[in-house]
Amino acid sequence: MIPSSYDIENAHKRIAPYIHRTPILSSQSIDDIAGCTIFFKCENFQNVGAFKARGAMNAALSFSERELQNGIATHSSGNHAQAIARSAKILGVKSHIVMPRTAAEVKRKGVLAYGGKVYPCESALSSREETLKEVVLKTGAVEIHPFNNYNVIAGQATAAKELFEDHYGLDIVLTPVGGGGLLSGTALAAKYFSPATLVIGAEPEGADDAFRSFQSKKIEPSQGNTVADGLLTSLGDKTLPIILENVREIITVNDREIINAMRLIWERMKIVIEPSSAVPLAALFKMKEKFTGKKIAIIISGGNVDLEKIKTLFSL
Amino acid sequence: MIPSSYDIENAHKRIAPYIHRTPILSSQSIDDIAGCTIFFKCENFQNVGAFKARGAMNAALSFSERELQNGIATHSSGNHAQAIARSAKILGVKSHIVMPRTAAEVKRKGVLAYGGKVYPCESALSSREETLKEVVLKTGAVEIHPFNNYNVIAGQATAAKELFEDHYGLDIVLTPVGGGGLLSGTALAAKYFSPATLVIGAEPEGADDAFRSFQSKKIEPSQGNTVADGLLTSLGDKTLPIILENVREIITVNDREIINAMRLIWERMKIVIEPSSAVPLAALFKMKEKFTGKKIAIIISGGNVDLEKIKTLFSL
Repeated sequence: MIPSSYDIENAHKRIAPYIHRTPILSSQSIDDIAGCTIFFKCENFQNVGAFKARGAMNAALSFSERELQNGIATHSSGNHAQAIARSAKILGVKSHIVMPRTAAEVKRKGVLAYGGKVYPCESALSSREETLKEVVLKTGAVEIHPFNNYNVIAGQATAAKELFEDHYGLDIVLTPVGGGGLLSGTALAAKYFSPATLVIGAEPEGADDAFRSFQSKKIEPSQGNTVADGLLTSLGDKTLPIILENVREIITVNDREIINAMRLIWERMKIVIEPSSAVPLAALFKMKEKFTGKKIAIIISGGNVDLEKIKTLFSL
Repeated sequence: MIPSSYDIENAHKRIAPYIHRTPILSSQSIDDIAGCTIFFKCENFQNVGAFKARGAMNAALSFSERELQNGIATHSSGNHAQAIARSAKILGVKSHIVMPRTAAEVKRKGVLAYGGKVYPCESALSSREETLKEVVLKTGAVEIHPFNNYNVIAGQATAAKELFEDHYGLDIVLTPVGGGGLLSGTALAAKYFSPATLVIGAEPEGADDAFRSFQSKKIEPSQGNTVADGLLTSLGDKTLPIILENVREIITVNDREIINAMRLIWERMKIVIEPSSAVPLAALFKMKEKFTGKKIAIIISGGNVDLEKIKTLFSL
């Protein structure tokens, strides 16, 4: 069932000992450029370097000890993989992570550091799903999907809940959208805890499946060609309905706009964010008039970026 | 005269409206590697992205309106340049900044953004000093030296003062050392506000003039060949005596150690720091036994790094 306000409050209490209440930063010079007041919720400072720690921990804690006895399994190219490995470690169980061979080295190492077992696969969704099915069959582990899971969605919603607790009167909250876990969780948190706040999704043009799904009202496949490598997945049948009902719109931006916004955040705010996290600021700059003079919050989703690839990114 | 505790308290009050009280961050995973508890005072989040905003503002505020009528001049390849330009802008006067042609583009742009006038020169100290002399003669501006100035030293001391206010019982404070403004200010702050805390300087091997000066007790020239481009200068006749009397020791580290420490901070803490700021953590790792089990503070001096050069840095 779609998480209720009680489910989100409960998730927040349950995960509180295991996550950071991340700081909210602002930058006068970015506000000056943007023409509005922006509060950046810094989930790049979250455990495992991304908001994914919230949803994974909440979903893991929703299983009984008995259900968890054979560990937790998932497939993920990135932050969710580390988040599951960490949650499993905290709970003293094994984690089995199916990762495409193309996954960033820094994320694979993160999984290993948390004691997770990595199962390499090809990057196509079919290969990921088949490999995961085999792993689950062989190990008896329970599966936690990266976004199409109500406990995960309720966990991701807690980032926005903290935003609303710390700042009253936000006009708009912007989040990036990949599979829609963060966006749907944020939309529910706004609905329950700050109903006057609009929620807007931001997506790369090169993976604009959520934008198209928002119009066709069905799950559109993702082609996936963008520098924002955390946002390649399509929506799920649990995230799409929540988004359709509670999100105002989805704005798409191109890779150049994403990199420019990312660079601005690095240079002005001195924080390390991954390209996916720059998509909302890029969207705000693209549709500037929509935001002028308003109180905006942006969820900085994560900070896991391969430093080896930085120069390539910045010379795009 | 060497700043007294009153001078530092007064500096702090005077500059408070114009600087950030920067956050102090910590990282469990870096503590685990280091075997001690580290508090990072994040001056990379300071205005102009470096602690230099403190000393420059305090020195600028120490002049009368009349003295300031022709503006402020200085020579600097980096953060002090931006700090002076910003202070001048706040006070509504002109700034004249002599900068070597080799200065990082991001720092030159920063000066221009604050309305400063840039006078290019060669990178040799003699060229900087001659050009500055001409500029001062022509404009009638007052000069604010980047470190060999007691008002600057008192301003830099306020970063450590905040550390001691926020965390009791620090065993050791580590700062990088270039011209010695931050190190001497920190040493004075410890002497007055936390006398049980030892102060240690950290310096690149490729510019180890402070290390040599610490032994010879006179100002040694700097050869200046290191990735930590903020630490190329020699000590001054105002910073050296304070350091000799109040600093426990100076530890030197090589460029590889600096880059490894910088990379660790970027990856684990998700903050952007410049190479100079990584020198203290590199020193701590090098002399690990000295710090085991202790409460350590490190002043992260700044976050102004040319993102174009990142890949070169990380592939050193």
